Amino acid sequence: MIVLGIDPGLSLVGWGVIEAKSVNNLSALNYGCITTSPKDALIDRIKHINLELQSIIDKYKPSVIAIEQLFFLKKSASVASIGQARGAIVLTAALNKIPLFEYNPRLVKVALTGYGSADKHQMQHMVKTFLRLKEIPKPDDAADALAMAVCHINTNSQKLRG
Amino acid sequence: MIVLGIDPGLSLVGWGVIEAKSVNNLSALNYGCITTSPKDALIDRIKHINLELQSIIDKYKPSVIAIEQLFFLKKSASVASIGQARGAIVLTAALNKIPLFEYNPRLVKVALTGYGSADKHQMQHMVKTFLRLKEIPKPDDAADALAMAVCHINTNSQKLRG
Repeated sequence: MIVLGIDPGLSLVGWGVIEAKSVNNLSALNYGCITTSPKDALIDRIKHINLELQSIIDKYKPSVIAIEQLFFLKKSASVASIGQARGAIVLTAALNKIPLFEYNPRLVKVALTGYGSADKHQMQHMVKTFLRLKEIPKPDDAADALAMAVCHINTNSQKLRG
Repeated sequence: MIVLGIDPGLSLVGWGVIEAKSVNNLSALNYGCITTSPKDALIDRIKHINLELQSIIDKYKPSVIAIEQLFFLKKSASVASIGQARGAIVLTAALNKIPLFEYNPRLVKVALTGYGSADKHQMQHMVKTFLRLKEIPKPDDAADALAMAVCHINTNSQKLRG
């Protein structure tokens, strides 16, 4: 099973593709960030996110997309930016007929560390461990996206075992 | 020139298509609302908005889309919903290669009534007047979308005259 994890944003979209041969055999196929500039028009930024995401989907053919739930505590302007990027990402998933799963940040922390208030360092350490990487993946947004993908596997492990 | 005005939202997307034969000759070709249910999954709601919008675009072939700018004073949860719908709408415009213009609510009021604090009734009255409609268009979201389209024509009247 190939899972594409996404940490959405308008300036930075973290992404990470993992392959789960079994629940205990996860590997990162690739990860990175899509970036757009605030200097560009919204439509061009949204289009760029769509094009880059489409090429990731075409290359890795994920069967599932796991995305971070919108966090309402963030300030209104960030929610607006993240929301718009998220809408474009969700539509890209829909146009590719890929099921989308949303995970709230706390659940992702529990799924990876067993602790809902785990800090960034703990989380990144566990991403590295689960995916048997030599180093902590950089930048942070890509690590968050990989965490999202690992969370999807861990919270659906019963189904995967079955 | 055919302009598609949009008042974005996740539960309700107001839309209105106007034809401008000249700056002083505007008519409403059609208007209405796309609705989605909070009971449905986000991906299905976003997909529904995209499909409906696509059929409006296919039918009326607008050369421009005019959309309300995101209003940061609204509470975070509404900004999140509107933002996600907006991202999907902007991507739909981009995929159809239709230029997108954003107008803030105050500018729309000035363009239609000359007064940045005009109330809903004044605005709807002017939409009816500009488009020579027999009645005020309903629901409010469709009237707002038509206002957006009229605003685009009025604020670009120099170009249209030229």
